[in-house]
Amino acid sequence: MNREIKRIGIVGAGNLAWHLGVGLNQADVEIVGVYNRSRQNAEMLATHLNTKVVSNFRAFRHCDLILLTVSDDAIKELAGEIPQFEGIVAHTSGNTALEILFPHKHIGVFYPVQTFSKDIDVNLRAVPFLVEGNSDEVETSLQQLAGKLSKEVYKINSQQRRRLHVAAVFANNFTNHMLKQAHDICETNDIPFSVLSPLIQETIDKLKTVSPAKAQTGPAIRRDMKTIKIHKDLLEGNSLKLYDLITKDMLETYK
Amino acid sequence: MNREIKRIGIVGAGNLAWHLGVGLNQADVEIVGVYNRSRQNAEMLATHLNTKVVSNFRAFRHCDLILLTVSDDAIKELAGEIPQFEGIVAHTSGNTALEILFPHKHIGVFYPVQTFSKDIDVNLRAVPFLVEGNSDEVETSLQQLAGKLSKEVYKINSQQRRRLHVAAVFANNFTNHMLKQAHDICETNDIPFSVLSPLIQETIDKLKTVSPAKAQTGPAIRRDMKTIKIHKDLLEGNSLKLYDLITKDMLETYK
Repeated sequence: MNREIKRIGIVGAGNLAWHLGVGLNQADVEIVGVYNRSRQNAEMLATHLNTKVVSNFRAFRHCDLILLTVSDDAIKELAGEIPQFEGIVAHTSGNTALEILFPHKHIGVFYPVQTFSKDIDVNLRAVPFLVEGNSDEVETSLQQLAGKLSKEVYKINSQQRRRLHVAAVFANNFTNHMLKQAHDICETNDIPFSVLSPLIQETIDKLKTVSPAKAQTGPAIRRDMKTIKIHKDLLEGNSLKLYDLITKDMLETYK
Repeated sequence: MNREIKRIGIVGAGNLAWHLGVGLNQADVEIVGVYNRSRQNAEMLATHLNTKVVSNFRAFRHCDLILLTVSDDAIKELAGEIPQFEGIVAHTSGNTALEILFPHKHIGVFYPVQTFSKDIDVNLRAVPFLVEGNSDEVETSLQQLAGKLSKEVYKINSQQRRRLHVAAVFANNFTNHMLKQAHDICETNDIPFSVLSPLIQETIDKLKTVSPAKAQTGPAIRRDMKTIKIHKDLLEGNSLKLYDLITKDMLETYK
């Protein structure tokens, strides 16, 4: 193996397929077709990518790669429906083991660390791609392919990838949940949420030069129990519970 | 009153004094002097601002505004040391009542919603300034002054400001604490934290077009208990506790 991936079959027609498909097109990789349970979405995507809808995996038999861009739950079943295949079968999930793609012979993971929305343009060049394969050859092929889309390509094993996925939950899901509390407080008190935008941006920009532990500020790290008490008196319900628990955790972390 | 603020005395010589001083200089507002407990810091700042150090508040008696840029704890005492004053006495704290500045006659709050570090340039034009005064005249004067520094100026009352400060704790302190967990997981598993940078930026960019509740993704909102279980098995200590508590809160919020 270790061949260049020139012909790809895409499985799935969601946000990820959409963005990857556009990127692959621009990188002059041939997209042989789009396979998807819902024909309507497949047709929209196929039209957009200037390729065709396929309704049988045999249409992909001369591909170098079948790329499963479907949800975690659907990977195993769909991979099982692909007949014996000489190319690489890869999924795009941060949270799914490589081995789920067995008994295919050449299997891999092609995981872009980003959330994709259909309407929002993403600069793929800056999206980190984490690749893994069940052989050096598969890994090298996937690395080369990722290198055509992005300048940030990393080889990573399943254990690292699974842990990175947990880290991403903190970095994206939980961060967003904190911003929801801030948003709700603003809304309840007739303050435009945009007042916090520069502060939020600065929170992130700071981490380009210092670690989060070094960047940490606020009443908890100053052990300013008076301010903490005032804040808690102003909160109620879930926000209060979160404030209390996270503050306790910070007091413990930075003691 | 309602006079234009042309001459300012700065109290304090920390990061905020530094950034505001530079901005006021550029806006051609006269900085009469810098008063600070530590003479050394005052001298560094005064030199930088091309003004002088003052060791007695009487030097500010012809100012239109004495601006207290000191820490929350020091505001009351320092305000008490200022002799009877015809101009405005204002503090810059998000978390301190206006009334703490009584019995001065004209009092106000001049609160920039941003964290300032000495070494990092901040574009003051984009920093929201929240102003408050004990009269319309004071408020108008402070609004005009803020308008010389920033294009985002809001009148806000003490109650709103205090609640905004709590929102800022979620938006900055707690968000940073989530990013610390992500950072620590990456570090422990030999993954560069920068792999998460585009995802983190996207988390914030998304909120320019949708609310945090609409933007929320992840296993908790999908009620994907299988993934949650896998994640919890990969965590330990404080990270595990936070994951568990925030996930529970999200399951409750989005039920």
